[in-house]
Amino acid sequence: MSLKVVMQGIESSFHHQAVEKIFPNEEITLLMCDSFEKVTNAVSKAIADYGVIAIENTIVGSILPNYGLIDTGNFEILAETILDIQMYVMALESESIHDIKEIHSHPVALLQCRDYLQKFPPQFKVIEGKDTASEAKKIKDQNLRGVAAIAGKQVAERFGLKILDSNIQDIKENHTRFVLLGKKEKQTIQQTDKASLKFVLEHNVGSLGNVLNLLTTFNINLTKIQSFPIVGKPWQYAFFVDVVFEDENFFFEVMEMLKKTVKELNILGVYKQDVSHAEVEFSNAILNGK
Amino acid sequence: MSLKVVMQGIESSFHHQAVEKIFPNEEITLLMCDSFEKVTNAVSKAIADYGVIAIENTIVGSILPNYGLIDTGNFEILAETILDIQMYVMALESESIHDIKEIHSHPVALLQCRDYLQKFPPQFKVIEGKDTASEAKKIKDQNLRGVAAIAGKQVAERFGLKILDSNIQDIKENHTRFVLLGKKEKQTIQQTDKASLKFVLEHNVGSLGNVLNLLTTFNINLTKIQSFPIVGKPWQYAFFVDVVFEDENFFFEVMEMLKKTVKELNILGVYKQDVSHAEVEFSNAILNGK
Repeated sequence: MSLKVVMQGIESSFHHQAVEKIFPNEEITLLMCDSFEKVTNAVSKAIADYGVIAIENTIVGSILPNYGLIDTGNFEILAETILDIQMYVMALESESIHDIKEIHSHPVALLQCRDYLQKFPPQFKVIEGKDTASEAKKIKDQNLRGVAAIAGKQVAERFGLKILDSNIQDIKENHTRFVLLGKKEKQTIQQTDKASLKFVLEHNVGSLGNVLNLLTTFNINLTKIQSFPIVGKPWQYAFFVDVVFEDENFFFEVMEMLKKTVKELNILGVYKQDVSHAEVEFSNAILNGK
Repeated sequence: MSLKVVMQGIESSFHHQAVEKIFPNEEITLLMCDSFEKVTNAVSKAIADYGVIAIENTIVGSILPNYGLIDTGNFEILAETILDIQMYVMALESESIHDIKEIHSHPVALLQCRDYLQKFPPQFKVIEGKDTASEAKKIKDQNLRGVAAIAGKQVAERFGLKILDSNIQDIKENHTRFVLLGKKEKQTIQQTDKASLKFVLEHNVGSLGNVLNLLTTFNINLTKIQSFPIVGKPWQYAFFVDVVFEDENFFFEVMEMLKKTVKELNILGVYKQDVSHAEVEFSNAILNGK
């Protein structure tokens, strides 16, 4: 029986690559959506076994709306994976870069290539599409001349398009972190060493410094912290925090202590860290260890 | 003699509104650029007296590349201002919403209106432009039928366009924080109560919890914290932090202490907080006070 995995975008997209990296050997039935909200809904309602969504990128930072979806969804983070994201310009086999009048891609991909795109003449059109891969597919399907897409190399290979330019994103070092979402009971038994937390502090309830020192005291080390506004509650602040640890049981004991000192604690997931990109900052830096 | 202020975009843009809010009574000569990098370059090279750039938004979060520009620029943050950002659809006076075949705006504005835009039929085109206001101006200047722009209300007023839809961003509560950049000697003498800092920690040098406790001990309260990857240095982490305080002299004494415990400290600016949007989280929440 194959696993049902829901993601945003179509086959060969970066999300599809992330799915394949998380499940290298399993038989997968892909459910493809056009928004992150539909992805998390499908997991919450058990329409899919798993969902995969991007949550942060080294150039644009955290994808805050996706953190919100994870925080409110009826599921947990079961795994993470990090991909090296390199952007390519692709078009029909017959085209050269001088034939291109307009370029299509996902808005975040276009943002990452802003410097590159500004070098084209003013009449050149930059057009937002649903996602990177489906814009490329459309060029092939509709035989669109004068049009290019920005997407990953694998998209050009999948749809038989010609690469006209390579590694065009403004900052060459470009990694995106994806998480696997699903019901806890679906988690395979394996040793975990990382967790994602959300907690809320009120200025008269506790101090962030105290929370961090509690974690440090028990050898739970921060790899990411981000304060996050709570709309309409100006005196409260939420934090999204990633931590790494050695002993899972000990970690849960500390979380019991933490619950008593914060206004709200949500353990978004406990999982194994992706060490396949050991050079990438957001997965490995240990901040408050001594 | 008028002040030379550089910004991204054209007259009536949100950046222009921010400039007018910061300098309500001064005579201003606007220098208009098409990128944030050109804005900070103009301030660094003293081509302009001041620059204004957006650095965070309640929906999309921090604009990380702009933090990078501030960190490396030869200037300081001299003030902040917060604007309520409401998005409007606008077109020529003769048009109705049913006539519109394509919509243009700045990529971040388009991202903020993604749900709204997805309700249009698939043949509807969403096109990235340089900024919100200049896309609207183009519609007027070139008498473009079937084309709408997404921008602030003031843009429709400025260029005589008709508003076809209002408050269309996905999340109604939408605030953007702008900062004024300039040379320190240009700062008018006034009492300051807020600062933006960047510091770097190594896991064997100090702990984030200790840094925060040092600040708390001296009544310097966090209003924002964000960890930030240092590309190519996986074991180091940078933090962008905003703090509020009561006594400026005391604040600088604590900074001298802080310098001794972190690997690197950069005071990005010391200024007066904008309390005109007291309901907005990122300017007012006090996190680690006791």
